[in-house]
Amino acid sequence: MPHRVVIIGGGFGGLYCARRLKRVPVDVTLLDRRNFHLFQPLLYQVATGGLSPANIAVPLRAILKRQANVRVLLAEATDIDIAGRRVILSDGDAPYDTLVVATGARHHYFGHDAWEPLAPGLKTIEDATEIRSRIFFAFEAAERETDEALRRAWLTFVVVGGGPTGVELAGALGELAHHTLRDNFRSIDPAQTQILLVEGLDRALPTYPPKLSQAAERYLRRLGVTVKTGSMVQDIQSDRVTIRHGETSHCLPARTVFWAAGVQASRLGKRLADATGVSLDRAGRVLVEPDLSLRGHPEIFVIGDLASFVHQDGKPLPGVAPVAMQQGQYVAKLVHARLAGRTHPPFKYRDLGSMATIGRAAAVVDMGAIKFAGVLAWLTWLFVHLMKLVQFQNRLLVLVQWSWNYLTRNRAARLITGESPLPPRTAERTQHGDPDAES
Amino acid sequence: MPHRVVIIGGGFGGLYCARRLKRVPVDVTLLDRRNFHLFQPLLYQVATGGLSPANIAVPLRAILKRQANVRVLLAEATDIDIAGRRVILSDGDAPYDTLVVATGARHHYFGHDAWEPLAPGLKTIEDATEIRSRIFFAFEAAERETDEALRRAWLTFVVVGGGPTGVELAGALGELAHHTLRDNFRSIDPAQTQILLVEGLDRALPTYPPKLSQAAERYLRRLGVTVKTGSMVQDIQSDRVTIRHGETSHCLPARTVFWAAGVQASRLGKRLADATGVSLDRAGRVLVEPDLSLRGHPEIFVIGDLASFVHQDGKPLPGVAPVAMQQGQYVAKLVHARLAGRTHPPFKYRDLGSMATIGRAAAVVDMGAIKFAGVLAWLTWLFVHLMKLVQFQNRLLVLVQWSWNYLTRNRAARLITGESPLPPRTAERTQHGDPDAES
Repeated sequence: MPHRVVIIGGGFGGLYCARRLKRVPVDVTLLDRRNFHLFQPLLYQVATGGLSPANIAVPLRAILKRQANVRVLLAEATDIDIAGRRVILSDGDAPYDTLVVATGARHHYFGHDAWEPLAPGLKTIEDATEIRSRIFFAFEAAERETDEALRRAWLTFVVVGGGPTGVELAGALGELAHHTLRDNFRSIDPAQTQILLVEGLDRALPTYPPKLSQAAERYLRRLGVTVKTGSMVQDIQSDRVTIRHGETSHCLPARTVFWAAGVQASRLGKRLADATGVSLDRAGRVLVEPDLSLRGHPEIFVIGDLASFVHQDGKPLPGVAPVAMQQGQYVAKLVHARLAGRTHPPFKYRDLGSMATIGRAAAVVDMGAIKFAGVLAWLTWLFVHLMKLVQFQNRLLVLVQWSWNYLTRNRAARLITGESPLPPRTAERTQHGDPDAES
Repeated sequence: MPHRVVIIGGGFGGLYCARRLKRVPVDVTLLDRRNFHLFQPLLYQVATGGLSPANIAVPLRAILKRQANVRVLLAEATDIDIAGRRVILSDGDAPYDTLVVATGARHHYFGHDAWEPLAPGLKTIEDATEIRSRIFFAFEAAERETDEALRRAWLTFVVVGGGPTGVELAGALGELAHHTLRDNFRSIDPAQTQILLVEGLDRALPTYPPKLSQAAERYLRRLGVTVKTGSMVQDIQSDRVTIRHGETSHCLPARTVFWAAGVQASRLGKRLADATGVSLDRAGRVLVEPDLSLRGHPEIFVIGDLASFVHQDGKPLPGVAPVAMQQGQYVAKLVHARLAGRTHPPFKYRDLGSMATIGRAAAVVDMGAIKFAGVLAWLTWLFVHLMKLVQFQNRLLVLVQWSWNYLTRNRAARLITGESPLPPRTAERTQHGDPDAES
């Protein structure tokens, strides 16, 4: 029987690992509780109506159908039986010789779990369509609201967290309010929308060089976004947010709040730590060995956002797609080397730089030696993201939509879907007995 | 103050009415509880992963933003105060001088409401994404199922109702099973999928000429669909369907059933009937006057799927998009004529024919004098549907995806979204307290 590799999670880490195992004589089982690989870096564009979910989510089976040594299973991993070398599923199990855990991270509200329904984060397709519904419903509600103060609260958006996700989301909101929705309403002027980006440190994009942070803040201001640095969210209610800046707090009426402030490693990390005694960092990420394996368990690897890998310079690697991709490929190569009886050097991250986009024709790119901002950075961002999309069809569809959005400033996917945000009918009106709604 | 026209519903009837009122000196309010116009004829392609929701759903505001005399409101009409001439909303009201009711129809289970969650119908975006999830989850579950009989039940699909929607859905399922999903699985062969189309009358597409029904049935068989005519569904359970054919019944293990058998007019029709004494037909549709107004209420019009209009030949017009479009435009012209003090002839439907498509390169077209089937009919179908899509961007995106789907037989939008269909974790495993799921 060939060596069995089980990979939990079809994100960047898991998928790149599976693909790199193509010519390795192993049986690969890729487990995911979703049937698609999600291109998370563009999720904010789904949340703001620029792209459709399917443009950035590709069925794992479609990607891997020609790779005969991979079996994709839609399943939920609930635990790992380390002694028995099998993954426990909610409805079965999957035995392994080598295990790759790549289950990623989720939001973290720093002890304020009650904020989650009030300030959703952006990690899944459902998060994105929920945020999309909230954004466009806020404008609809403002159009119908006659009280000036209440209308103002509907037209106030707060994004918590000034990292790349927060900056990109706030920038896209600025685009929407100032350009896309122009002429769409009769009672409100969407350009009156107030967008706040709240960051605890002293500048937006704090992991970037200060010069690029300045450029990003300038672009954000141009799109009508107010950047509040050195500020923390103290409380969130359904109709207001309390923000603390130094010693003073102030309460802002706002109906729409989004969370881009913190992530925490997914739950399997804790299970691994409990079972093997390895340490977790503050964000719950598993401290891994130089070869990404678990101490004392060379047969188990942890990669991507779930792993805490301390880099050459002593800092842990950030939770970004390129790290996960390289780690996935590294583990595949290491497995290959082991089976061939060869040794393999420790993992080394090749930093190709990082970038963030802020609305139309503006972005920042940090490639270490080279740092630049503006239109060229934006074109670089576009090109890199387009090329990294899996499947040619999605590249084409995204290119068509980006061109269209650029030329017309329109965003076509502005759908309010899911549960209706409209007020329920009153008892008097529903007593007629028909549960169906109208119009 | 200009004459106030309130339109309830932004489907084909309401939207075409609003657009035709562009140069008429009236104030138009278009009420809809969704923020988009949905191109229902292509909904089955969303349900089968060929297109994305946003490709066939366009924000009403985007369509009407340059039409200064139209105000779009996201609102739910719960009743009509006919004496007071105002529409009652769940949160307010909308006064009118002329009212156009175009709230359409919904599914009808002929007294078996318990079947609704077991056999969803296809009317909304949420219906389509729910059906999409069920289809692709069924294949995932079959891939993991080891019991041959249970696997067979996951690979059995039943479509109830052999009208255009049922035929198009069954055809697309055939395409999926026999072509799109080829090589995607390791344990099952999707070509083993059993697809049943159940029709009570003696042929599929019973409203079409018999020759076209024969062609449609032939195309369906080619795609592996079994057409069961003269058959009725007697019972639906979560794991089986009982079908009666004449005097005999038989029980078929099947996990996935879709409903395309009956529609019923929406609830406002009943309110109008109760308040004005006009009659409803068996499907709950409002019998309208030759000018589409309500008897005794020339200021109220009912159009589209909610209206029962008896045609020149004594038969009621079918609930299809062209009828709704023409009726919407007719009412706009009539309002225009009235305001100008002119009379206007009664409504007359100009039948441009009907068409249905059955998978790849096969369709039937009935244009009265001319009837044809096959590739030419399919190209006609493609062209007409592409041209009728609102907004150029959607035409382009749909064209790209259709070309892609045709060339590769792929369907990219195969996402299982929404609530997870996976079995819940067992109590033992969830007691650790973390509600988040993994992998």
